[in-house]
Amino acid sequence: MYYIGIDVGGMSIKGGLCTADGSIVNKAVVETHVYDADYSISQDIKTVIDNLIADSGVNMREIRGIGIGHPGSVDSKGGIIRYSNNIAMVNAPVVPELKKDYPNLPIAINNDANCAGLGEAKFGSGKGTNDVVFITLGTGVGSGIIIDGKLFEGRECAGAEAGHMVISMGGNMCNCGRRGCWETYASATGLIKQTKQSMSDNSGSLMHVIAAEEGKVSGKTAFLAAKRGDSAGQSVVDNYINYISEGLINIANVFRPELIIIGGGVSHEGEYLTDKLNCLMQELNYGSKYNPSIRVTTASLGNDAGIIGAACLVM
Amino acid sequence: MYYIGIDVGGMSIKGGLCTADGSIVNKAVVETHVYDADYSISQDIKTVIDNLIADSGVNMREIRGIGIGHPGSVDSKGGIIRYSNNIAMVNAPVVPELKKDYPNLPIAINNDANCAGLGEAKFGSGKGTNDVVFITLGTGVGSGIIIDGKLFEGRECAGAEAGHMVISMGGNMCNCGRRGCWETYASATGLIKQTKQSMSDNSGSLMHVIAAEEGKVSGKTAFLAAKRGDSAGQSVVDNYINYISEGLINIANVFRPELIIIGGGVSHEGEYLTDKLNCLMQELNYGSKYNPSIRVTTASLGNDAGIIGAACLVM
Repeated sequence: MYYIGIDVGGMSIKGGLCTADGSIVNKAVVETHVYDADYSISQDIKTVIDNLIADSGVNMREIRGIGIGHPGSVDSKGGIIRYSNNIAMVNAPVVPELKKDYPNLPIAINNDANCAGLGEAKFGSGKGTNDVVFITLGTGVGSGIIIDGKLFEGRECAGAEAGHMVISMGGNMCNCGRRGCWETYASATGLIKQTKQSMSDNSGSLMHVIAAEEGKVSGKTAFLAAKRGDSAGQSVVDNYINYISEGLINIANVFRPELIIIGGGVSHEGEYLTDKLNCLMQELNYGSKYNPSIRVTTASLGNDAGIIGAACLVM
Repeated sequence: MYYIGIDVGGMSIKGGLCTADGSIVNKAVVETHVYDADYSISQDIKTVIDNLIADSGVNMREIRGIGIGHPGSVDSKGGIIRYSNNIAMVNAPVVPELKKDYPNLPIAINNDANCAGLGEAKFGSGKGTNDVVFITLGTGVGSGIIIDGKLFEGRECAGAEAGHMVISMGGNMCNCGRRGCWETYASATGLIKQTKQSMSDNSGSLMHVIAAEEGKVSGKTAFLAAKRGDSAGQSVVDNYINYISEGLINIANVFRPELIIIGGGVSHEGEYLTDKLNCLMQELNYGSKYNPSIRVTTASLGNDAGIIGAACLVM
């Protein structure tokens, strides 16, 4: 039996045919378009599904369901994308539309970070745990919160926006309209800004050499410089890890998961990142002497987490 | 049928005989002592229960259960107070001890703010709602989070510490060991500090007159001054309401409850407080244009919330 997972991104819509053990046996992809009343995203998702089935040669009867991960505010109960800004959409009835094409299959949709969290919790770094928070540090900060093995979405699927906790009142302007949201500090976007600021303040820093080698300032620039002994780079990294920790410890104090899994490009820093985060977590979480401990680790499914997690929605 | 609710505080242990509609038909109280291996708090709780039953003349068979609200970290599954600092205690097995005296009754224990939240959600301002967060602004900031009608406690009952979300990195020192926790800004303790600071900066402020009239600086001083047109008092109040809003909106973005209920002495400011909080909430919660709205209101059960909520644990 197979489960189809669809991971919608700003550039492409990726699909995978998954088995019950979370393996992907076949993949398909199409480009993401601009959607409107005449051309809905459901049409592109249908193309991915149909290609996936045709390519793999499985029988439709072997498919047990279709799960979709999509950026933005998703009403998972109604199967509707309430609001998405990168792929501009308001109240798009994705599941009801797909139901017309696949009337006999369970079809589910959820936020993409929720899906990736579910994938990591069930089949990635969180395998075997029940209370997991997945945090993806990318353009923004996304979160997938799993309580007792189930996705926690907040009332009407409109919560779990951990990236939009303010950690610095009156701080950086966030595009959600508040100042000081965690994502403005802990996202890769935030790290790049912090790196650029430090480069402008430290003309002799190795970060200039590294950025020139790489052709741009990226989320890796400060980490590479720090590892080569550059003090300005080290200072960017130290501050950035502190920023991450503030949000992680807030999450710890509210949810106290067994495990917090960090995803996104920055997670490739591995233990260089998590060793310090674990120290801060252990030192500063509420009542750490008396309360159950919390471990911070990095994601293990990479880019497949979204597909596998979407498939988990219908497993 | 009756349900006993016990509300343990630093000064007294209050008990109430409650009916299934959340009314208290009789009350009893004893002083809180210092407890150790020879004199456990269970003995005082037993005295309250026995007095309550003797006074009200009800038959033991009419009692359906005993619920206890206690400050600090409570392991509600094991019935143990893990850690409490105001009433100094570590790993106190309150429920197992009481079980010896009342072997046939369900006995439950939980954190006091959780109980008050449950009481307000079931029988107070939250009556008829399913997703409610109760925030009590007192010495610290306590929270009781009700999701889908049930208390959310975090893994091993060690979460839901919303007062210990950092809203200002590197800010005020909190006695939990972090800097910038919400409770250092939004508690009554925080408000009094902010008031004193402003009084020291503004020697001509009406707050000096009001504090002299009241005999002390309290959580009311700045509010009273603001209402009489004092600009320094107004500024204290405006900042304080902003501090409260930062944590409330963080909670909104993570849980998106229908209702946030404010308890504690400050809640007596009523709409003077909630009108501005509702404006800020509506303006600044994540995706407010597209997501379900969240209302902020004040508690209605007053000091009885703890007793009624404790009784709710066994209803």
